[in-house]
Amino acid sequence: MTRNRLEAFTDGVLAIVITIMVLELPTPPGHEWHDFWLAGPKYVAYILSFIYIGIYWNNHHHLMHAVERVDGGVLWANMHLLFWLSIVPFTTAWLGESHGAKVPTVLYGISLFLAAIAYTILVQSIIREQLRHSGGQRSRLRDVVGNDSKGYVSLACYAAGIGLSYVDVRLGWALYATVAIIWLVPDRRVTRALGD
Amino acid sequence: MTRNRLEAFTDGVLAIVITIMVLELPTPPGHEWHDFWLAGPKYVAYILSFIYIGIYWNNHHHLMHAVERVDGGVLWANMHLLFWLSIVPFTTAWLGESHGAKVPTVLYGISLFLAAIAYTILVQSIIREQLRHSGGQRSRLRDVVGNDSKGYVSLACYAAGIGLSYVDVRLGWALYATVAIIWLVPDRRVTRALGD
Amino acid sequence: MTRNRLEAFTDGVLAIVITIMVLELPTPPGHEWHDFWLAGPKYVAYILSFIYIGIYWNNHHHLMHAVERVDGGVLWANMHLLFWLSIVPFTTAWLGESHGAKVPTVLYGISLFLAAIAYTILVQSIIREQLRHSGGQRSRLRDVVGNDSKGYVSLACYAAGIGLSYVDVRLGWALYATVAIIWLVPDRRVTRALGD
Amino acid sequence: MTRNRLEAFTDGVLAIVITIMVLELPTPPGHEWHDFWLAGPKYVAYILSFIYIGIYWNNHHHLMHAVERVDGGVLWANMHLLFWLSIVPFTTAWLGESHGAKVPTVLYGISLFLAAIAYTILVQSIIREQLRHSGGQRSRLRDVVGNDSKGYVSLACYAAGIGLSYVDVRLGWALYATVAIIWLVPDRRVTRALGD
Repeated sequence: MTRNRLEAFTDGVLAIVITIMVLELPTPPGHEWHDFWLAGPKYVAYILSFIYIGIYWNNHHHLMHAVERVDGGVLWANMHLLFWLSIVPFTTAWLGESHGAKVPTVLYGISLFLAAIAYTILVQSIIREQLRHSGGQRSRLRDVVGNDSKGYVSLACYAAGIGLSYVDVRLGWALYATVAIIWLVPDRRVTRALGD
Repeated sequence: MTRNRLEAFTDGVLAIVITIMVLELPTPPGHEWHDFWLAGPKYVAYILSFIYIGIYWNNHHHLMHAVERVDGGVLWANMHLLFWLSIVPFTTAWLGESHGAKVPTVLYGISLFLAAIAYTILVQSIIREQLRHSGGQRSRLRDVVGNDSKGYVSLACYAAGIGLSYVDVRLGWALYATVAIIWLVPDRRVTRALGD
Repeated sequence: MTRNRLEAFTDGVLAIVITIMVLELPTPPGHEWHDFWLAGPKYVAYILSFIYIGIYWNNHHHLMHAVERVDGGVLWANMHLLFWLSIVPFTTAWLGESHGAKVPTVLYGISLFLAAIAYTILVQSIIREQLRHSGGQRSRLRDVVGNDSKGYVSLACYAAGIGLSYVDVRLGWALYATVAIIWLVPDRRVTRALGD
Repeated sequence: MTRNRLEAFTDGVLAIVITIMVLELPTPPGHEWHDFWLAGPKYVAYILSFIYIGIYWNNHHHLMHAVERVDGGVLWANMHLLFWLSIVPFTTAWLGESHGAKVPTVLYGISLFLAAIAYTILVQSIIREQLRHSGGQRSRLRDVVGNDSKGYVSLACYAAGIGLSYVDVRLGWALYATVAIIWLVPDRRVTRALGD
C-alpha cells in the first residue's frame, strides 16, 4: 500500500510535468505556417523533454516492480528525484526560447544530470532498505540491476555533454540525445529477471 | 497491476490536458456581455477539444478492458498517444485565437489526425502483444475490434478535413465534427463483446 | 473497476480545477499590505470557488457509494458535469477581476447553475442504469436520494440569483452563498442509508 | 475505500501544487548565467516550498496509516488543509518576486501557519472520529501521536517567525527553516508504533 501511494504521487507529478510544458509553447503571432515555425526550437525542446519524462516514468514503473516496502529514506529519495524532474519544464522553456544557446544548453544538461543522480540515489536507497530488511542477506533490486552500467554511462554522457557544450552546443545536444536513446530501450535486465 | 498504473498515468495526463485548456481562455477585457463574446471562437474551440479528449478517455477506458498485460511496446505506444493529445491545448489555443483561420484549422486537424494514428498503433501493439503471448493463437482485443472500420473512417475524415480546409475551412470543421459524432457513440462492439 | 477509473478521472480533474485557480491570482504589484489587498475580491472569488469544487468532490464521493456499475450514459453524464466544473476557474477569474460586476456575477451563477443541472442529470442517469439493470425493480441510489429536494432548492437559488443579480449583485452573491451553505452540510440521507 | 479516495484526491492536489509552482519561474531575460541568477530568490523560494509540500505529503501519508474510516468532518478538515496548501504557490511567488521583502515574508509565514493549524485540526478530527466510533474507548491515532509536541513547536516557530519578521526578515526565514528541519525528520513515533 505504501508503495502504491508512492507510485500514485509520482505518476501525478510526472503527468503534470509532462503536460504543463505545453503551456510554455506560445500561440504563434500570426496565422500562417511561418508564424508557426518561428517557435521551431521550442517544439524540439518540448519533444525532447517529453521523451525524457516518459523514460523516467517508464523506468520508475519497472523499478517499483522490484520493490515491496518503502521506508522514509526511499520516500525522500523519490521526492528528490521529483524535484529535479519538476525543474525540467523551466530549463526546457529557456532552452527553447534561446534557440539552443550555450548557457541554456548547459543548464538543461545540468537539470538532466541531477535528475539522473537522484535516480541513482533512489535505486541505492531501495537496495539499502532491502538489505537492511533481510539482515544484509538479499536485495531483489540489486540482483536485478547488477552493476548498473547503463546508469553510469548516462551520467558520463551528461557530464561530457555539459562540458562539451562550452566547445560546441551541438556536441551537448548529441550527447544528451545519446542518453535518451540508451534509455528508450526498456531495461530488459529488470523485465527479464522478474519475468514481467 | 502494470495495466493499472498505465491507466492511472493516462488518466492523469488526460485530466490535466482537458483542464489546463481553460487557462488559455482570456479574462474578457471589460465587464459586459459583448466583452465576453469577443472570445466566442475560443469557447467553441475549447468545447470541441474537451469533447475530443473526453472521447479518447472513454475509448481508452473501453480499450483497457480487453487488456490483461502491458509490455514495453504497449507502454511506449501509449506514451506516443499521450504526446499528440498533450499538444491539443496548443493547437486549440491557436485555432481559437485565429477565429478559425486556415492554417490553424489545418494544424488542429493534423494534431487530431496524428493522435488518431497513435491510437491505431496502440491498438495494434496490444493485439501484437496478445498474439505473441498466446503463441499466435488469440487476441481478445482483435476479436473485439474486428476490422476497426470506425478507426479507418476517422482517419479518412481527418485527412479529407485537412486537405479541404485549404478550399474552405468550414469543410474542415464539418469533417472534424463528423469524427467527434462517430466516436461519441460508444464503441458498442467492445462493450457488447465483453458483456460490460 | 470501471467505477474506480471514473472516480480517479473525476478526482484528477477536480484536483486540477481546484488548484489551477491559484494561477489566476496575480502577484501583488508592490511589497506592502495595501498591494496585497488590491486583489481582495479575487481572493474572495477563489475561496468561494474552492468551496464549490470541494462540495462537488464531496457529493460525488458520496454519490459513487451508491453506484455498482457504470455504463456509457453515466460516463458521458459525468464528463458533462466535469465540463461545467472545468469552466469555473474562468468564470471565477472574471468575477474576481471585475470586483463582482453585474455581468460577471451573472455568468458565474450560470456556470454554477449548469454544473448543478449536470449533477442532476448524472444522478438521473445512474438511477436509470440501476433500474434497467434490475429490470425496473430497484435503484439503490433512488431509494437513497428520495425526491432530492436539496438539489431542486439549489437550482431554484441559482436561477433566482442569476435573475436578481440584474437588480442588485449582492442579492446574487447571497443566493449563491446560500447554495454553498445548503451543500456544506453533508448529504446525510446518503450517508445514513448506506451506514457509511 | 473512502480513505483511498481521500488519499487519491490529496495526492492529486499536492502533486499539482508542487508542480505548478515551476510555472511561476520566469524564463531568464537573456542567455547568460547572470540572466539566470537574476531570479535567484525565486529559486530559493521554490525549493523551500517544494520541501514544505513534500513534508505535508509525507506526513499525510504516515497519518493515513493510522486511519480506518473517514467521516464528513474528516473530509472537510482535509479539504481545509488542502485550501491553505493550494495558496502556497501564490505566497511563494510573491516571496520570491520581492526578493524576501518584509510583508511577503510575513504572508508566507501566515500561509504556512494556517496550513499547520489545519493539519492539527485534521489530526484532532480523526481522533474524534475514532473515539466516537469506539464509544470513547480508543483512538489508534491518539495512541500514536501522543501529546504531539512536534506540532506545537512548529506552530510556535511559525508564530514567532511571523512576528520577528517585522524586526528582521532573516529571523523569520530562520524560524520557518527550523520547522522544515523538524519535520524532515520523519515522524518516527507513528512509523514505530505501527511497525511500518
